[in-house]
This record gives sequence, C-alpha cells and structure tokens, in this order.
Amino acid sequence: MHSLKETPEAEALVAFACGLADLAAPMSLDYFRTPLDVERKADLSPVTLADRAVEAAMRERIGATYPGHGIYGEEHGNANIDSAHVWVLDPIDGTKSFVTGMPTFGTLIAHLEDGVPTLGIISIPATAERWVGRAGAATQFGGAACRASGCTRLSDANVYTTSPDIFDEHGLRVFENVTAGAAMRRFGGDCYSYGLLASGHVDAVIEMSLQPYDFLALVPVIEGAGGVITDWEGRPLGLGSDGRVIAAATAELHAEILEIIART
Amino acid sequence: MHSLKETPEAEALVAFACGLADLAAPMSLDYFRTPLDVERKADLSPVTLADRAVEAAMRERIGATYPGHGIYGEEHGNANIDSAHVWVLDPIDGTKSFVTGMPTFGTLIAHLEDGVPTLGIISIPATAERWVGRAGAATQFGGAACRASGCTRLSDANVYTTSPDIFDEHGLRVFENVTAGAAMRRFGGDCYSYGLLASGHVDAVIEMSLQPYDFLALVPVIEGAGGVITDWEGRPLGLGSDGRVIAAATAELHAEILEIIART
Repeated sequence: MHSLKETPEAEALVAFACGLADLAAPMSLDYFRTPLDVERKADLSPVTLADRAVEAAMRERIGATYPGHGIYGEEHGNANIDSAHVWVLDPIDGTKSFVTGMPTFGTLIAHLEDGVPTLGIISIPATAERWVGRAGAATQFGGAACRASGCTRLSDANVYTTSPDIFDEHGLRVFENVTAGAAMRRFGGDCYSYGLLASGHVDAVIEMSLQPYDFLALVPVIEGAGGVITDWEGRPLGLGSDGRVIAAATAELHAEILEIIART
Repeated sequence: MHSLKETPEAEALVAFACGLADLAAPMSLDYFRTPLDVERKADLSPVTLADRAVEAAMRERIGATYPGHGIYGEEHGNANIDSAHVWVLDPIDGTKSFVTGMPTFGTLIAHLEDGVPTLGIISIPATAERWVGRAGAATQFGGAACRASGCTRLSDANVYTTSPDIFDEHGLRVFENVTAGAAMRRFGGDCYSYGLLASGHVDAVIEMSLQPYDFLALVPVIEGAGGVITDWEGRPLGLGSDGRVIAAATAELHAEILEIIART
C-alpha cells in the first residue's frame, strides 16, 4: 500500500499541487460564461481555449519546479511518463458543463508514484470548492476532513452518472441493472459527483469511457474519504485502465455493484 | 399581451417576490448538505423537511401582505386559486440535486395575473444567483439584463434536459429525435437549465412530467430574455398545461423543435 508520508518532501508536493489548482482556477473562470471558440475533437466533446491555456500554465510550472517529473495531460500530450513521478492533468473536466455555463466543471490534478495515484485534487473554480486527497490520510474539503456515507446497500444508494451517452450497449445494460436496484439515480456531474461522494452526499458513481486524466485524481480523494474506487472488475485504477470506473461509499456497496456488473 | 407595468403596485410586487426569495435562500441552505429525513412521495421523488419549511414561510408572508392572493404550492396545496392574483411556489426545485449536495437546486416563485405568469424568479441559493423575469421587461441576472443566445438552428444548439427518466415512451422518442439533430445534449439541471438559457449559455431545454410550480416561474424569465417557452404544441403555459415544456433561445429554434415534435 503506497502512502504519501508526512515528510517535508511530501508536504511540499501537496502544497505545490494546491498551488497548481490555485493557478488554474482564475484562469478557467476568465473564460467561463464568455463567448468561446469551441472546437470539436474527434470524440465530439467540446474543448475550449481555457482547457489549453490552463494546462499549458500548469505544465510550465511543473517543469520549472519538478523538471524530472513526467506529465500526462489531456490537451498537450505526454512527456516523460516512464518517470517514477508523473502528474496527470485535466484542466477542464466537464467541458459540456463549462461551455454551457454550468458551474460544476472542475480541474483535476493527480500525482502518481510508480504508477499509483498518491495525491489527487478535485478543484471546482466556480464554487470555490476543493477536495484534496492523499494516500494514507483523510481527504480534505473546505479545510476539514470529509467522509463518504456509510451506505452499504444498493437499495439505499443515490447513484450518479454523467450521462447515458457515455455507455456502450453492454455498459448501458450494466448501468440499467445497477440503478434498477438503487434508491435513486441522477445524471450530470462529471468530477463533481466524486467530490460529493467523498463528502457523503452521493453513494456511488458508475461511468465508462473515461480517460486517465478523468479518473486518476479521484482515487486518493475517494479512498481518503473511506470509499472504494476501481475499474469494473475491481482492479485498482492506473494509467492503463480501460476507462470503466465504479466508485462507492463502502466496500459492501462496491462489492454489491461489482457482482451486478459481473453477471450482466 | 399581459405586461407588468412600472406602476408603484407592480414595483412593490416585484420587490415582495424578491423578498420571498431572500427569505427562502438561507432557510434551504440551513438544510443543504446536512443529514435529512428524506421521505418518498408517491412519485418517488425525494422531498425534504426544507421543502416544507420554506414553502410554509413563504405562504405565511404572502398571506400577511396579500391576503386576497391565491397560492399554488408544491407541498402545502392550493388556496384561493380562482383569485385574479395567484402565487405559484416551488420551495426546492431539483430535490434530487438537493439531497445529494448538488448546488444547482433552486427556489421558484411565480406570480400569475388572470392565469398568466407575469413575474417569475429562479433563485439558486447555493451559488447566490438569481434570475428575475417580469412580463414586458428585460430579465435581470446579477443586477443586469440578460439575454438568450441568438441560436436559430438546432444543429448549432446545446440542448438540456434533467433526465431521460422524466420521459414516457413517446416523450423519449421526441427527445431522441430532437437531440439527434442538436450540436450537444447534456443531462441534469432542473430549473438551473432555464436560467442558463436566459443568460445565453444553453440554447434549448426540453422536458416533460413537470408540474405548474416547476415551469410557471420560468416563463417570464425566458420571455424577458428574448426566448420562447411553450408546451409541446406551442401553446402558452398555464396552470392547466400538461407538463410538457419546450424552451428555446429564439423563435426560429423553437419552431424547428416544434416541427420535430409534431412529426414524432
């Protein structure tokens, strides 16, 4: 079990990561709710000028402070990702939210040691909220430790997903089977959903078609709040994961959902 | 065409309605992100203590100031709704958002004159945002007039709906046909979607299964921003509407969507 020890180096790393989020927040807000040249990427998700500017600024700062670290970013590709230390960046998670003025978009920052996400930040610029997770410590939200709910049964669980459109045919059957037994399901949310899970308001999130920059920052946040987050076969998430993610407030709830996935 | 003239009485009415939103906001925030006894209504949507407390407080204030006015509320039923003046109240619109900590829930306040919504407020307590619409005047957001986008073609439009689960079988076909030709579709939002439309960020919203307290406050907000909002047959919305709502940034976009609805 990797954990980010309370060494001076680790403290400096966490402070540096928070500084990246501080850097990113006003930059993305400068572009938020203003007219944008929205391009279409191959996958048809909108990507904005903000996305590129924010990532470039974060990469520049990482390069200046930790020149030996690798970087895996949504917009500007990968550099030196065989390093023992790799930053994984999503400058604007929830670009559909961003371009339609919805304040729940976020900036995701993960730091990997030997491929394991040991530090993760979900920063929500428009609401000035931030979840900071580090391996082996309690996830912080608004200056205090936060905790996932104690929900152990799917029939009591509030389940989130960003959109039915993220699922392929099998994935949609999985989603339907999982949520058929849930107390409630709600759509929309992107990374915000996982923050709400870490704070005890949402009990499970099920998604697919995610990229490493979409989910690696979530891992320390969810785990540091007592939750469980894996791929759909229960394996730890890493750069090589297939983009299917299940997060749950408790091991029991996680196991119940995995069982439904396995038999769908 | 009804319009709320700039008479002292009308000004007082708008100020009073804003006062209702001021009253409701801290009350709902007191309950937000705290443990709640969530009941299940017959329709399985969660309803909270906040919902009831906020509506009761608004009704009490209306009764004290405008004892002759009728009230149509989500939680505490109808009183004197044959009056020429009727208030339509939704204390917590987006209860699924509310109970899962999502900050986009709102309080909706409409005032009807002879059955026509001439005053509407979308208040978002958690983000301290508020849209105020009055017939014959520009919708106000953050102390300034706001304006729907100029989007006239569905192929350029960002379309919102709260959830695929709000549609029946025919409604889902309509939704699929409308969004098949759209630039983008996004789920989640409740009343917040209509505020984003009034501010020019979202181009169309299509929903069904709404109640009068869900949509009547939206009418002056959308119309005062230059948009169009009707039922699925293009008729004005009123207390007797069937809960199918289409809102669009322009008359052209609205007409294009109505045409798709008509042939589905």
